[in-house]
Amino acid sequence: MNTKIARRDFIKSGVAAGISLSGTPAILQGKDDREIKLGFIGIGGRGTGMLKTTMRLPNVSVTAVCDTFPKNLRAAQALVEKTQGLKPESYGDHELSYLDLLERDDLDGIVICTPWELHLPMTIAAMKAGKYAATEVGPASSVNECRELINTYEETRVPCMLLENYCYFRYNMAVLKMVRQGLFGEIIHCTCGYGHDLRERIVLGKGTGPTSKGEGDYRSTHNEYRNGDLYPTHGFGPIAQCLNIQRGNRIQQLTSTASKSRGLRQWSKDNLKADHKRRNIRWNQGDVVTTTLKCFNGETVVLTFDTRLPRPMSFMYQVQGTHGIWMQDGDSSSRNKSVIYLDGKSPHHQWESFDSYQEKYEHPVWKSYLDEAEASGHGGTDFLEMREFVSCIRDKKTTPIDAYDAAAWMAIAPLSELSIATGSAPVAFPDFTNGAWMTNKPIFGLG
Amino acid sequence: MNTKIARRDFIKSGVAAGISLSGTPAILQGKDDREIKLGFIGIGGRGTGMLKTTMRLPNVSVTAVCDTFPKNLRAAQALVEKTQGLKPESYGDHELSYLDLLERDDLDGIVICTPWELHLPMTIAAMKAGKYAATEVGPASSVNECRELINTYEETRVPCMLLENYCYFRYNMAVLKMVRQGLFGEIIHCTCGYGHDLRERIVLGKGTGPTSKGEGDYRSTHNEYRNGDLYPTHGFGPIAQCLNIQRGNRIQQLTSTASKSRGLRQWSKDNLKADHKRRNIRWNQGDVVTTTLKCFNGETVVLTFDTRLPRPMSFMYQVQGTHGIWMQDGDSSSRNKSVIYLDGKSPHHQWESFDSYQEKYEHPVWKSYLDEAEASGHGGTDFLEMREFVSCIRDKKTTPIDAYDAAAWMAIAPLSELSIATGSAPVAFPDFTNGAWMTNKPIFGLG
Repeated sequence: MNTKIARRDFIKSGVAAGISLSGTPAILQGKDDREIKLGFIGIGGRGTGMLKTTMRLPNVSVTAVCDTFPKNLRAAQALVEKTQGLKPESYGDHELSYLDLLERDDLDGIVICTPWELHLPMTIAAMKAGKYAATEVGPASSVNECRELINTYEETRVPCMLLENYCYFRYNMAVLKMVRQGLFGEIIHCTCGYGHDLRERIVLGKGTGPTSKGEGDYRSTHNEYRNGDLYPTHGFGPIAQCLNIQRGNRIQQLTSTASKSRGLRQWSKDNLKADHKRRNIRWNQGDVVTTTLKCFNGETVVLTFDTRLPRPMSFMYQVQGTHGIWMQDGDSSSRNKSVIYLDGKSPHHQWESFDSYQEKYEHPVWKSYLDEAEASGHGGTDFLEMREFVSCIRDKKTTPIDAYDAAAWMAIAPLSELSIATGSAPVAFPDFTNGAWMTNKPIFGLG
Repeated sequence: MNTKIARRDFIKSGVAAGISLSGTPAILQGKDDREIKLGFIGIGGRGTGMLKTTMRLPNVSVTAVCDTFPKNLRAAQALVEKTQGLKPESYGDHELSYLDLLERDDLDGIVICTPWELHLPMTIAAMKAGKYAATEVGPASSVNECRELINTYEETRVPCMLLENYCYFRYNMAVLKMVRQGLFGEIIHCTCGYGHDLRERIVLGKGTGPTSKGEGDYRSTHNEYRNGDLYPTHGFGPIAQCLNIQRGNRIQQLTSTASKSRGLRQWSKDNLKADHKRRNIRWNQGDVVTTTLKCFNGETVVLTFDTRLPRPMSFMYQVQGTHGIWMQDGDSSSRNKSVIYLDGKSPHHQWESFDSYQEKYEHPVWKSYLDEAEASGHGGTDFLEMREFVSCIRDKKTTPIDAYDAAAWMAIAPLSELSIATGSAPVAFPDFTNGAWMTNKPIFGLG
């Protein structure tokens, strides 16, 4: 069976036989033991983590791995062989070896954990090869690339999934449930972002790919040449769910403003020897990028990208409506601690801890997961998203974070660059749904 | 002595004899017992509070009060008479009665606590009458009005002072001291704002002026007709000090985006009877306005205006540099609690409480004030700013928050309106200093 036939079959089963577009989410459905075969493209630091997570899933095998860095390939093969008993075939002789992997006729799905600029091209290639594609998060390189993702989906009907694990955060799913139950009233304003001190990583690189630490990597390159919100989806994804972006709502426009670029240079000066070859790089990327989005339904979102200055980690989540507000707290455990104020319920003008609300409004996905987790001990949002991806493949369903989500969320990056490059001029946001946003319904975290 | 002669004398003493432009701030100088006579214009809720605060100052008397609301006038006269033994003369027969008050030749300074739209016209009139003018905070009605303030100052050299008490907050002054000592490295990005649930006040009015509660007041009117950041200075003032705005730095431009307007309507629906005359007002003001400012030195500032939704109070302060970050915490006591992270000093990627830093970097103004306060029991930032205003008058000094500060900070309001009205278009910020910002030195909180 060649991939063309496979793709034609897929389209048939998808469109004619009907990929289920609604109903109980895959993640909540009963067991189906059909084995799902996955191929991994990119098995550096993040890819290895996702590979380990994936192999915890029942009835999933990894039969092919691809990386242009031989050390990564060997390690991944050994890891898979040790875990599942069979050594996956390896690909990686050249930059386009992943296309050979995609030609395999045994693969049901592809997981992509490569450098940022490869995410969308590889996702598109996987869909064209008739394989469900899951891609790690990052920025789009251009709006055109996002458009091509949509065109590919609409031509092939092969689903893809953006692996935005932050949508699966326990507190984000509880807040989403509360939003949908109307606890906050009509949603008016949200904030979100990615605040993470990555100075060393950006200047020196991670060393988990073909370049050693000290030589920089893809993240370094993007920071050296680009200037925009290069990591919008961790912040924006969960907020997009609360605002029904492209499912009854749409981003109308954005403005973006970058601060000066000093953090990486200062860190290099403070930490690298005078003759270190990465000490005097001229970084284009501003230290803090602030993007303000306006939605067609009138909501505003402030998105912050802040990875080049010293700071404790924060995702800056805030969801504010006519009847209440929820926000991450600023204290030392900010990622897992948040506060809430509900009009007429909370003590007058006083924040409450979110803890009791978390318990009361626990999302069903987390309710069942916590029960399981106590027994099996596997952990976290990566597991939840990979389990859902595999369930979608198994049930031939569309994914809960789909091509339209990926396109819109990742497009924030090039659009923010355009706004910054034109003095914070407002930039109209493309409609990737071609008008369907007015009638589309939410697909994430249902039930 | 008529006011024209008085003004000429003032200009002579100011320009020829020399208003001191530098040196030890007035607030820190030794005692001078010359009595200072003040007139108050506007003695509603806030004016009465400021009147009480002012009368705690030694060797200050209030000899004239003005309000168009007779009840306020009588109450203020009684209050002053009770406190200082002499009944001040009253003005208020008509809207322009304050001009009669300004003609008095016994007054050294004027304190203005009137509705927002009167602040700048009255300040300008007071300066033209040769009187030091202190005005409460609020938005400018137009950039032109700010320009006129500057023209008036440059023509008369009579100082005015914006009573931005938030600049005197204990933690803001400590942070300013730390910024100046370089603890945060080079400042890159700041946030600030005014988050205060004022729904009832905006819809119904305060009832402390000529209109009763339930009839609305100036704040209601501004929210009904305008749409911008109508209260920028509480947030921006302290940040402007950290960024040396107009004193080595300048705002280059801003973009502003307003959310939809729902909060006031929803509050009215939830709280007012169906036939209440203020239940169905069509409010122009968006619930949350986000303004992003870019400075000539490359810093960004995000300013939020949020008074029409339920929420605990917050000023959203954050100061972030190449070596550290300080921010207000989100918890229930957020106004007086904040956290800090200093690179290489704080535990790795962990917030610390600001408490020990507050003690270590206490500003001299607060150090001496806390000593006094223990003895005399008077309280707060209003006292500090009024004491400094009176000291400036006594010493014929310029004020620490001057006409240039007032013009730039208050101009954010009409400029944000312009940006919002033009789809968040970037708006160039006027240079009120005519180039002097490049060489001007900081004047606030020195010592």
